[in-house]
Amino acid sequence: MRSLQGDLPRATLTSSSLRKPSMTRVHNFNAGPAALPLSVLQRAQAELLEFESTGMSIMEHSHRGKAYDAVHTEAIELVRELLGVSDDYDILFLQGGASQQFAVVPMNLLPTGRSADYVITGVWGKKALKEATIVGNARVACDTAVDGVWRRVPRQEELSLDPAAAYVHITTNNTVAGTQWHTLPDVGDVPLVADMSSDILSRPLDVSRFGLIYAGAQKNLGPSGVTLVIVRKDLVESARTDIPTMFQYRTHASSRSLYNTPPTFGIYMLRNVLQWVKEQGGAEAIERTNRAKADALYAVLAERPDFYRLPVEVESRSLMNVVWNLPTPELEAECVQAAAAAGLVGLKGHRLVGGLRASIYNAVSLESVHALCDFLRAFRK
Amino acid sequence: MRSLQGDLPRATLTSSSLRKPSMTRVHNFNAGPAALPLSVLQRAQAELLEFESTGMSIMEHSHRGKAYDAVHTEAIELVRELLGVSDDYDILFLQGGASQQFAVVPMNLLPTGRSADYVITGVWGKKALKEATIVGNARVACDTAVDGVWRRVPRQEELSLDPAAAYVHITTNNTVAGTQWHTLPDVGDVPLVADMSSDILSRPLDVSRFGLIYAGAQKNLGPSGVTLVIVRKDLVESARTDIPTMFQYRTHASSRSLYNTPPTFGIYMLRNVLQWVKEQGGAEAIERTNRAKADALYAVLAERPDFYRLPVEVESRSLMNVVWNLPTPELEAECVQAAAAAGLVGLKGHRLVGGLRASIYNAVSLESVHALCDFLRAFRK
Repeated sequence: MRSLQGDLPRATLTSSSLRKPSMTRVHNFNAGPAALPLSVLQRAQAELLEFESTGMSIMEHSHRGKAYDAVHTEAIELVRELLGVSDDYDILFLQGGASQQFAVVPMNLLPTGRSADYVITGVWGKKALKEATIVGNARVACDTAVDGVWRRVPRQEELSLDPAAAYVHITTNNTVAGTQWHTLPDVGDVPLVADMSSDILSRPLDVSRFGLIYAGAQKNLGPSGVTLVIVRKDLVESARTDIPTMFQYRTHASSRSLYNTPPTFGIYMLRNVLQWVKEQGGAEAIERTNRAKADALYAVLAERPDFYRLPVEVESRSLMNVVWNLPTPELEAECVQAAAAAGLVGLKGHRLVGGLRASIYNAVSLESVHALCDFLRAFRK
Repeated sequence: MRSLQGDLPRATLTSSSLRKPSMTRVHNFNAGPAALPLSVLQRAQAELLEFESTGMSIMEHSHRGKAYDAVHTEAIELVRELLGVSDDYDILFLQGGASQQFAVVPMNLLPTGRSADYVITGVWGKKALKEATIVGNARVACDTAVDGVWRRVPRQEELSLDPAAAYVHITTNNTVAGTQWHTLPDVGDVPLVADMSSDILSRPLDVSRFGLIYAGAQKNLGPSGVTLVIVRKDLVESARTDIPTMFQYRTHASSRSLYNTPPTFGIYMLRNVLQWVKEQGGAEAIERTNRAKADALYAVLAERPDFYRLPVEVESRSLMNVVWNLPTPELEAECVQAAAAAGLVGLKGHRLVGGLRASIYNAVSLESVHALCDFLRAFRK
């Protein structure tokens, strides 16, 4: 398999005056933290010692100063523009990732005496449910696991929804299972809450369908350490007031996420990634590329169903995380290793399910996916 | 005053091959986020596109991969080494800053039916107290404010300590008031909990005196977005279990702060800052420089007590945040503006107290402080 390395040259940097001559970029299929657009990294590098002729790095700027504030404000405005978020919603930049939101959502939105509905389509939804039950009352509206394995998202008629629920929680894309909701569930007048960590901004979104959306930045939005929350203002206003100040959404909504020191460099990077998305043509263009990437990869895998096995039902297949198995764990390990040697990294499946996984978030190029397709065609021979 | 700009040349970069020829660094006295060591920024810049020949940025690495893990582990080990932290303590990297710890400390360490003591020496201690009263029972063991203004830390005999308290909380350095504890209080067998955000690693520390130490990174440790927590293992073990998983110290202690995705770039920067501290000679050498910086600045200010007024009592003066007033708010504004024009930035006092403030954390060089001293001598003429 080693000969593949010569056949599949690594991506070579061509546009940075700062690069080391010998530098190569691998094809990065990491599940998160994940690949970032090269131009975004190059800009961060160029500005790292001095941001906009201010004599200091963006990291050294006060979060209360003009230079950082302009970045912060632009990041909020770009989220609003690119996702079409109406003024009925607040856009927050928080910390702690989706794992913290698993608790903070019910702390805010689940009053004593009410219950919340959870639709479980993978390990992350299950973790979210667990935290809700620590905070208050929560019930399972559906769980698509069979023998502990999730292979699909549910159909509408499988949902057992409580019309009096405080909210319904879903996970729009399941990084471990490799599944994704392609049609949103109808939850009536109950607010829909979505963990969108792994497919936020991968496609156009009708935000008005949601009461709250949260997403760790480290897949499609930037480096780890920033959490995007989009929340309907009436839910912020009616949220619980008996919890610590830092966990109340109203604290951050009323201060534009500047109540305390935000992760300034992470938000700067997020701003730059959002600018890059806009340059690509916005969510519609990003979705077209994402579909082309996923279609190409699923097609190559489907060419030899006896060798590359796709466990996820067709209608539920994720455009972000493509998972597959080989006939034996040994062959899977060999495939991961040969790919890495060819400059295709991050393909090992999640430790819970094994197999292989290619995470092809927004910043993974069609070129990288084609390189992976070429590799997979060669490997199976 | 403009003529000062010519007299006080800005620091000029000399050692980076990546610098733009015209680049200058200002003297940065920001209160946090704050100045970072130039060599740390240069290294981050050089490695930004490719970390250790891995073909990707450190930001693009999985937090479960070998490359990031080595950085993460080294960061923990350097905290242990530089602060002399024994194996009786866990070292955690969390998110949300000190403001989140204001709540998370009592959520873990303040059981129902117990009370915690808070010593209030500034606005941050007051905020910490407020969150503790949301979570449980807390009382004020001392408050040194006079007419709403804090000018000193208390003497031992002023503390009204509850021997049955779950813990005693102090703020070791007060960024707004410009005060600092130079002798730790005797709290008997009650665990001492300290918000050390603005003086962590500015001097050697007897960690064994503390039950728990927490610090936002953005003053002495790195960029914003990482919170260091050093906590005695017996307190972790006996902490409350009825709170969300992400807020339990045991969650992060048992997973080496890798329960969920950590802020990887922030921890990478923190690791690099800690390496820089070690290169400087460790906490003892850092303290010597910090004393030289503070001594020089306080001395210049004391030369003309009618013009530069030092509100803080001598024994309580901070080595990190030097605050002073001028005869009128107009003169203060003029001084801040003239300093900025001379490349000395971040000197405006906190909005709550006005005046001027020079934050001279570890990464602010003696050269920068001397430049400020020269400016202040010239300005008063």
